[in-house]
Amino acid sequence: MADEQDLRWMRAALSMARRAVGRTAPNPAVGCVIVKGGVALGRGFTQPSGRPHAETVALAQAEALFGPGAARGADVYVTLEPCAHHGRTPPCADALAAAGVARVVCAAGDPDPRVDGRGFARLREAGVAVETGVLAAEAEAMNAGFLSRHRRGRPWLTLKLATSLDGRIATASGDSKWITGEAARARVHLMRAEHDAILAGIGTVRADDPALDVRLPGMADRSPLPVVFDPRLTLAAATRLGSGARPALVLHLPVGAPDGPEAHRETEMRERGLTLQAIPPAPGGGGGPALLDPRAALEALAEAGITRAFCEGGGRLAGALLAAGLVDELALFSGGAAIGAEGLPALGPLGLGRLAEAARLRCVETRRLGPDALSLWRPDHA
Amino acid sequence: MADEQDLRWMRAALSMARRAVGRTAPNPAVGCVIVKGGVALGRGFTQPSGRPHAETVALAQAEALFGPGAARGADVYVTLEPCAHHGRTPPCADALAAAGVARVVCAAGDPDPRVDGRGFARLREAGVAVETGVLAAEAEAMNAGFLSRHRRGRPWLTLKLATSLDGRIATASGDSKWITGEAARARVHLMRAEHDAILAGIGTVRADDPALDVRLPGMADRSPLPVVFDPRLTLAAATRLGSGARPALVLHLPVGAPDGPEAHRETEMRERGLTLQAIPPAPGGGGGPALLDPRAALEALAEAGITRAFCEGGGRLAGALLAAGLVDELALFSGGAAIGAEGLPALGPLGLGRLAEAARLRCVETRRLGPDALSLWRPDHA
Repeated sequence: MADEQDLRWMRAALSMARRAVGRTAPNPAVGCVIVKGGVALGRGFTQPSGRPHAETVALAQAEALFGPGAARGADVYVTLEPCAHHGRTPPCADALAAAGVARVVCAAGDPDPRVDGRGFARLREAGVAVETGVLAAEAEAMNAGFLSRHRRGRPWLTLKLATSLDGRIATASGDSKWITGEAARARVHLMRAEHDAILAGIGTVRADDPALDVRLPGMADRSPLPVVFDPRLTLAAATRLGSGARPALVLHLPVGAPDGPEAHRETEMRERGLTLQAIPPAPGGGGGPALLDPRAALEALAEAGITRAFCEGGGRLAGALLAAGLVDELALFSGGAAIGAEGLPALGPLGLGRLAEAARLRCVETRRLGPDALSLWRPDHA
Repeated sequence: MADEQDLRWMRAALSMARRAVGRTAPNPAVGCVIVKGGVALGRGFTQPSGRPHAETVALAQAEALFGPGAARGADVYVTLEPCAHHGRTPPCADALAAAGVARVVCAAGDPDPRVDGRGFARLREAGVAVETGVLAAEAEAMNAGFLSRHRRGRPWLTLKLATSLDGRIATASGDSKWITGEAARARVHLMRAEHDAILAGIGTVRADDPALDVRLPGMADRSPLPVVFDPRLTLAAATRLGSGARPALVLHLPVGAPDGPEAHRETEMRERGLTLQAIPPAPGGGGGPALLDPRAALEALAEAGITRAFCEGGGRLAGALLAAGLVDELALFSGGAAIGAEGLPALGPLGLGRLAEAARLRCVETRRLGPDALSLWRPDHA
């Protein structure tokens, strides 16, 4: 059982880690605090793209503020097992041991096969006391994306829906300004910043020409990679996401004849600077245009290093992800407008017979956001 | 400024009043506590149908427990101005004065033209100190139905919607068991008990054959009056609400030819024991079957003594009430199922052009209820 001090400092380390969420893919977002005599000598979190590591940042800060050898005999709180492998830098486990720290307290182990217990072993061999499992659940939640990519081969997926009181995302004419107010929209931008990629269907991109970026003061550099589900390669050059001015990934169905119109569009889109990736079609499919297989699409994102994906619709893509059981968290923003039955539905057709067969989530949190409501939903098993 | 003791005892009186909400129409739900030396000698709330009044009940309890004259010199906390008119019983203002109470603390005045300040005046003339306005907003909220009927000539209207994540109330085949879980359904029954009438459209009655009663332990006697919006008088005898086994009110369009099929059905329904009331058609209307004018329907309910009405849909009736600005509170129960675009919509067609023209409510409260979410919404001006 961890004592009060350990819990307190691990919470501080978790709050450092939080700042890195959405900026470190494919690496985990880690926080570290170095403590001696009840004082934090140094703090750090994983830097953008994953280097330097949190431990390195915290050690450097301690030495810069308190002089060489400052960390000797200190307690180190770190949210994930220190690395044990030589990458661009020497292993953090070695760096901590070399700094002479007395004890390392960890929240969670690192499932990366290059670490996976070796970090703890190296510390213990060097005579450093090691404790693990302090606030492990909180640390797992913080690194849900990193862990999902390692364990399930796909990113953690958050689905955002912003609907009217009656579950509509726009009027019949496509007017969606605004379903929710400023507080809700700011929250969406913060959520975007905490993910590595934003997913949208081509229908939504065509209708709204969204930027899918983070427009919060001081966070302009935190816009995730836009990913467009575009089966037939129709993303136009005259759109914000299709122009190539900003990196974007286009997922599409395998292209047919090598000199057909799709192959031509594929070449043209690559020339614009877009990244393209073919995905097999969804099984079954039934009526309507062919869709990408949603699970294969997510696996391709994991391959590309994406750990946390944020889907903003539209209704067909959202419905396909929910029906396939791929949604890890649904953020449902509800605005106070009554749009009526002619409005655009939040979810596309799902071909559902009986209600008992429906994909079902459970509510884990609700709150008011200005005039709107936000509810968070998770799968039953989560 | 009320002192701490006054606030404390007025809260006790309000919690007594709460027990009477939904049982006293057309009378207000009032609570009363009689206090001497920091001790509550008697408590009371308005009894079913409105008599005896809360003050009478509290005085009787004080005398029964502490002997005749117990209330002499006491402070009386009452949530609404004591009555000043002779009804089936003498005025409460006189009864309090005769009991020799020293002071009456009131939350709100009674707008009934037979009272409206006369209760306070009679007390003061009898030498009783009177204070008013203590927790007035809370008391007004408690008597929103009574006040709405007096001030606006229509009942307070709560609209309940129970929808899937995507705003559907059933699958395409009409399967709605269950959109929400047990905790949410129990909450709906409690809400029913706190209203005088439950409104439902004929489409919903035909599809679901609902009982619209209160099925909570010990509250079977608190089922409100069912009111069916049935423009063409088609409520079948073989339904729970149409059999006549229980009183029910049917609102319908004016009947045409006196020997036509509707006149025949009207006679037949009266013979079943149903109460019938003609309502003019909604203005405009456009396509689709004619609807009752929702405002005229609510005014007819107020005429009939209804102070608090609870609408449970379906989508056409709910949409008409929202579009007409008649909804005072929306209780939106959201379940975790994803039903998809083929499902039955929570609101019928509203013919909306731009989103800015939509009826709009603001969220005032959210909470989890088991696996579901409940959000409460009010008009902007409320």
